[in-house]
Amino acid sequence: MTQSPSALGVFSVGDGPPRLGARIGDRAVDLTHLFPASSLNPLLAAGPAVWRELHDQLTAIDLDKHSHPLSGVRMHRPFEVADYVDFYASEHHATNVGRIFRPDGTPLHPNWKHLPIGYHGRAGTVVVSGTEIRRPSGPLGPGEFGPTRKLDFEAEVGFVVGVPSDGPVRIDDFADHVFGVCLVNDWSARDVQRWEATPLGPFLGKSFATSVSAWVVPLHALDEARVPAPPQDPQPLPYLRAARPWALDLALQVRINGHQVSAPRFADMYWTADQQLAHLTVNGATLRTGDLFASGTVSGPSPAQRGSLLELSWDGQEPLTLPDGSTRTYLEDGDTVTITATTPGGLSLGEVTGTIRPHSWRRPT
Amino acid sequence: MTQSPSALGVFSVGDGPPRLGARIGDRAVDLTHLFPASSLNPLLAAGPAVWRELHDQLTAIDLDKHSHPLSGVRMHRPFEVADYVDFYASEHHATNVGRIFRPDGTPLHPNWKHLPIGYHGRAGTVVVSGTEIRRPSGPLGPGEFGPTRKLDFEAEVGFVVGVPSDGPVRIDDFADHVFGVCLVNDWSARDVQRWEATPLGPFLGKSFATSVSAWVVPLHALDEARVPAPPQDPQPLPYLRAARPWALDLALQVRINGHQVSAPRFADMYWTADQQLAHLTVNGATLRTGDLFASGTVSGPSPAQRGSLLELSWDGQEPLTLPDGSTRTYLEDGDTVTITATTPGGLSLGEVTGTIRPHSWRRPT
Repeated sequence: MTQSPSALGVFSVGDGPPRLGARIGDRAVDLTHLFPASSLNPLLAAGPAVWRELHDQLTAIDLDKHSHPLSGVRMHRPFEVADYVDFYASEHHATNVGRIFRPDGTPLHPNWKHLPIGYHGRAGTVVVSGTEIRRPSGPLGPGEFGPTRKLDFEAEVGFVVGVPSDGPVRIDDFADHVFGVCLVNDWSARDVQRWEATPLGPFLGKSFATSVSAWVVPLHALDEARVPAPPQDPQPLPYLRAARPWALDLALQVRINGHQVSAPRFADMYWTADQQLAHLTVNGATLRTGDLFASGTVSGPSPAQRGSLLELSWDGQEPLTLPDGSTRTYLEDGDTVTITATTPGGLSLGEVTGTIRPHSWRRPT
Repeated sequence: MTQSPSALGVFSVGDGPPRLGARIGDRAVDLTHLFPASSLNPLLAAGPAVWRELHDQLTAIDLDKHSHPLSGVRMHRPFEVADYVDFYASEHHATNVGRIFRPDGTPLHPNWKHLPIGYHGRAGTVVVSGTEIRRPSGPLGPGEFGPTRKLDFEAEVGFVVGVPSDGPVRIDDFADHVFGVCLVNDWSARDVQRWEATPLGPFLGKSFATSVSAWVVPLHALDEARVPAPPQDPQPLPYLRAARPWALDLALQVRINGHQVSAPRFADMYWTADQQLAHLTVNGATLRTGDLFASGTVSGPSPAQRGSLLELSWDGQEPLTLPDGSTRTYLEDGDTVTITATTPGGLSLGEVTGTIRPHSWRRPT
């Protein structure tokens, strides 16, 4: 498997300060001499011409002189998140969730195929891959409070905004604004979420933590993964129609404690990233450098392609069995969830991983 | 009417740079010599001891030497917003909304009296009072797109976080973290919101703009407005119980084009600000300097105390008549909405105002 020659992130060595780096093979290349910065944000803001220029410089870099083995560096959150938006773009996921939560209703809400449903998440709790995840507490029902009993992952793909905008971004102008792609785990406490989410959506059930991969892959490095987007019926509104609808063919893998539990494909998503960006700005909402928007759970048509435990265990009714003989409905303390992705050409998008730590009890009053 | 001796904001004079200022009477006092900064954030982060110290220094300041008439300064957004959370804390508002949108159901959802319902809004589109508001477009129904026909205001009170936290903030530790209070207008496009908001909550219907007052009143300046909080039934969970439940008795006024259309009281809110802060962190979500959380629409029990046009016009069924003989269901282009508030002692919280500008047409593809 080859590695992207130009995934970018922020690392430090020993007690040294965080600095911009590029991942080349199993090396972290120090970019201080090319673009001194302690987060990706100044590079994100610099725009496509600078992104390309840096890429070209990287191909000529002296690896021996400027690089460190990945095993010897500490990774930091690669960018300061401005606003974080999470979508709900997989028809398979939305249908599964609808069947689980509303078994007697139609699985998809009437609006779902007319616009990419999304909501704002908490930017301040976006953490880098490897950060431990503390099991959250929250209200669970009338008079009921405690650590979540339904801690879940959501395997997602995130898009990192570089260039701001003052108003609507046309769907075909996507690459003028978006720098690149990361992997996202939108950790969810399903019991908290279910009790709180009517009518204003998820809040405490999501806001405790969202993990992102340490390396962000520039969009232009993913050209080989571009495929035509799946057909949409009904035809979407004009602002959601690309000249040539495209998707990214990324093969995701989700592992719990090293054991693969799901392998969804990103190309199966109903709503695409360019549609999501056009949608989130069509009302005039401005974009800032560091805005992050994520796809929503990536789930495919088959049970082995479900991107959350809510779906994989059908809300606990169908436990998974792990190779050690233990079963899972939702995550247990000590579990490690790792999401990876590769392109058809074998380029790795790195990983987003996190280990569940026990709830830390603290008397609420 | 007296003015707060210590509302803080950010202003500039002529082509000069933005600097920290205090509002004393009708003067903006330049604080550059006391606390040089171009936004409130460094002061917010400095914590209660520094806030008090600055307040004491202000009482001894030489007004002639350091101040400008308010009419001669330009106000800026007073702080950089980290995360923006909006609550839904008025029982009268939530009940009215329930009656309007679900006439055949129970007005309040079953969870409403068990936890302060809230959601994350878009921090990047929080603007300072006086900023013009462009009428947003968005999807309005199946195959339907256009400028909103139901542009509304929401009269709210906002709380500005100064001191960060790494985890749950106990309800009685509120003043260790919250710096002060501002007025908020959470502009809303009701038709967009209604079509999009199931199941993940409001998105484009809110994300185009949220206005905040230019001056932030420190919490300690509002001691005289403290009153006991209204009783709650059922008793809330332990983390939502304050040692001495308190509320702020602020009299809000909402004017359209100078004509008062509503006068809600903030003391009528069911959920209080300290409960909201305890709630939003109880799952371990961290706080950052610059976090803003708003109360949700402040509506009282009588029709003249409704804090939104959705309620005042009962979603358009009962138009308001303005003094010029014109009627309003929702806002028209050119309308100016101004929200003010005063304490029982006559201290003014300033105002949040905005004028609606026509939709700027832009072909979506």
